[in-house]
Amino acid sequence: MEKTRKILLSEKEMPTKWYNIMADMPNKPMPPLHPATKKPIGPEDLAPIFPMELIKQEVATDRYIEIPEEVQDLYKTYRPSPLFRAYNLEKSLGTKSKIYYKHEGLSYAGSHKANTAIPQAYYNKLEGVKRIITETGAGQWGSALSFACQYFGIDLEVFMVRISYDQKPSRKLMMNTYGAQVTASPSDRTKFGREILEKHPDSPGSLGIAISEAMEIAVQDSDTKYALGSVLNHVLLHQTIIGQEAVLQMEIAGELPDVIVGCFGGGSNFAGISFPFLKLNFTEGKNIRFIAVEPASCPKLTRGKFMYDFGDTSGMTPLLPMYTLGHNFIPAAIHAGGLRYHGAGVLVSQLLKDNLIEARSKKQKECFEAGVLFARTEAIIPAPESNYAIATAIEEAKMADEEGVSKTILFNLSGHGHFDLTSYDKYFGGNLEDHELTNEEIEKSLSEIS
Amino acid sequence: MEKTRKILLSEKEMPTKWYNIMADMPNKPMPPLHPATKKPIGPEDLAPIFPMELIKQEVATDRYIEIPEEVQDLYKTYRPSPLFRAYNLEKSLGTKSKIYYKHEGLSYAGSHKANTAIPQAYYNKLEGVKRIITETGAGQWGSALSFACQYFGIDLEVFMVRISYDQKPSRKLMMNTYGAQVTASPSDRTKFGREILEKHPDSPGSLGIAISEAMEIAVQDSDTKYALGSVLNHVLLHQTIIGQEAVLQMEIAGELPDVIVGCFGGGSNFAGISFPFLKLNFTEGKNIRFIAVEPASCPKLTRGKFMYDFGDTSGMTPLLPMYTLGHNFIPAAIHAGGLRYHGAGVLVSQLLKDNLIEARSKKQKECFEAGVLFARTEAIIPAPESNYAIATAIEEAKMADEEGVSKTILFNLSGHGHFDLTSYDKYFGGNLEDHELTNEEIEKSLSEIS
Repeated sequence: MEKTRKILLSEKEMPTKWYNIMADMPNKPMPPLHPATKKPIGPEDLAPIFPMELIKQEVATDRYIEIPEEVQDLYKTYRPSPLFRAYNLEKSLGTKSKIYYKHEGLSYAGSHKANTAIPQAYYNKLEGVKRIITETGAGQWGSALSFACQYFGIDLEVFMVRISYDQKPSRKLMMNTYGAQVTASPSDRTKFGREILEKHPDSPGSLGIAISEAMEIAVQDSDTKYALGSVLNHVLLHQTIIGQEAVLQMEIAGELPDVIVGCFGGGSNFAGISFPFLKLNFTEGKNIRFIAVEPASCPKLTRGKFMYDFGDTSGMTPLLPMYTLGHNFIPAAIHAGGLRYHGAGVLVSQLLKDNLIEARSKKQKECFEAGVLFARTEAIIPAPESNYAIATAIEEAKMADEEGVSKTILFNLSGHGHFDLTSYDKYFGGNLEDHELTNEEIEKSLSEIS
Repeated sequence: MEKTRKILLSEKEMPTKWYNIMADMPNKPMPPLHPATKKPIGPEDLAPIFPMELIKQEVATDRYIEIPEEVQDLYKTYRPSPLFRAYNLEKSLGTKSKIYYKHEGLSYAGSHKANTAIPQAYYNKLEGVKRIITETGAGQWGSALSFACQYFGIDLEVFMVRISYDQKPSRKLMMNTYGAQVTASPSDRTKFGREILEKHPDSPGSLGIAISEAMEIAVQDSDTKYALGSVLNHVLLHQTIIGQEAVLQMEIAGELPDVIVGCFGGGSNFAGISFPFLKLNFTEGKNIRFIAVEPASCPKLTRGKFMYDFGDTSGMTPLLPMYTLGHNFIPAAIHAGGLRYHGAGVLVSQLLKDNLIEARSKKQKECFEAGVLFARTEAIIPAPESNYAIATAIEEAKMADEEGVSKTILFNLSGHGHFDLTSYDKYFGGNLEDHELTNEEIEKSLSEIS
């Protein structure tokens, strides 16, 4: 019997609008607050760092927002992305459940980050911006933005978290090849970076620190804007292209997922796959479950506190209502660099608070074990971040088997692991460590900010 | 106006047969000769190293050979591959010509090599083979076969050319992740490897040496077969899936290529894209041009001699009628490791001898320049090997512009460059060298074998 392994959409079938969950979520998030006045911020507060179209999207309440034609056109360098049925993985598990995955690793940057890099660069270009500064963790966001900026004629400087800069030199070279300049963070290029280095000369860095450095330069230079690869509403909005395609593809497969899984750093790939299916829960009475999976070493969703906190370490961003471990929190140097972030996006935090989604944490060795099984069955070597989603999809399949039921499980394969093979090597050599925080460590980190 | 960037085929549209050019080429190649008797070899001579189904394919004259269902099924983990129109590249060149590329870099291994790795592992499994030994240059073939062997339950050992082993550690780790064992060649594991190391302790290795080492072990061990990633007829046969898809896709685009370009190591990706279009020349009177592009530092097609020579350095393989630089030739350590081979496949050699295809050589700096332009316009960072095809496609477009005509150019993007970023770094730093051989060097190498 002939199997269909993957469901493709033609370019003509690619959605032409982003889905804005603000229109449908029952409780809207509380507003971001100005760090000085503690009053809700207005568009003018964000204007120095973001182009106005992105600020509008940050607060938009329309259900759909048109994807500009030039953005659609560049999406087509890699989109629509295929949706795979994981037949080989299912067989090796001996599960009765069906496992599907949306493969975002085929983009030029190797992950979903291109979905927001392209529109962010585009809207900056429309406003005549000549230079952007950003941060990157594992390097996927930086790579994605590097090409997009090159294409639209914008200079890009990237602050790359030190531990990833050292672990993944080829990610830096990829950004260089696309024409961007890359600096390891913390760096001596900024006041905040120098302060950190003075106290912790061996700091592995964090996304929070890298954001602070990038913003410090952006606000000083009126010709320079800042760009963020996750957390913010407009970023999550852009990622909904993933889930909207997947809704169409699951329809073609003739299935509705029982459960949808995404790994979780700031929320962008999880939101991308989930929000368009959450709409089905909100507007069509479906009952799909959603699981955000975070590292046990950076458990803001499962062990953090819902409160107003800064998005960066130095306290330059607006205060955001979110699950957080405290903006001073420096996660252990695990290999899923894209998940090493102290907070969670506002939209996803609100949905979790309202019990509309679930969260789970996992240690890295179990996730690498799942990633190796996936590689050896489905042929694709996943990014360490994606391994958290794979491990959870496998766990859900096993739980269903124990219950004696068959479930339809969909996860987002956020990226490939071509630049992460040294971490697999460490796994095979028994040199990966699992990190779990004590309650005291979490309380200490949170007490510093409340 | 809405552009279609890429033409996709559904899994159902994927060709189910390989195209065998032996059926249609006007002059059949001369037979391989036994190295000792100098008489044409028979199937029994190859039986110790290859499974019988592959030996049959090596000499088959049927026009089409069925692709086994299990092979078709695994092809679908990444096939059919998309065919792109290079709009952005065309625009940056300001050319009137249309440039298309078939993107083989989306396979699990990152190149076209999976197209033959899967059937080779499959036919070995059918014969109950438990262990395979192979060589790899840049690591693409080794990576491709690693997953295929893992999937079919076969142990794999790979001799990887030393210079690539050192340049591209992640390729080794990719093979390990798929479960293969990797040894740098020349090695002390074989008699021939030890001989080389004694004379040249710093030998960068070559495909010819690595083949000798792999074969030396395979012939000694009756439970072990050997596998080759290029050159042989059955390998080129498997690659025709590329060109057959491209024929369908160009039909959908409503175009017939004027010229088709592939980079050239042993001939497999060039044959893959070209042979199904050559069939149109043979059977439908079309007049498509075909250009095989090789490195100026390894110019067997443009400056080598058509003669019987060994496929490996130690002289273990049958004697093959081919363009060669001599089996002792050690190419300079350029970064396109997959093109560092002294000879050319028998089928492609015969076609070149009969002027049915063209050959051209290029130096590596021009090719990297083309690769960077491609990356910064089309978003994909190409393998150094593929850069030779890109540079030639660009050259053809410029020549057409000078003539005042518009041509339709199709090239094969054989793979991505995710594991080759240090070579791009060298290019940017001005640290790449161009190598061109003197006539004396070529004559000396050839005189050693005649």
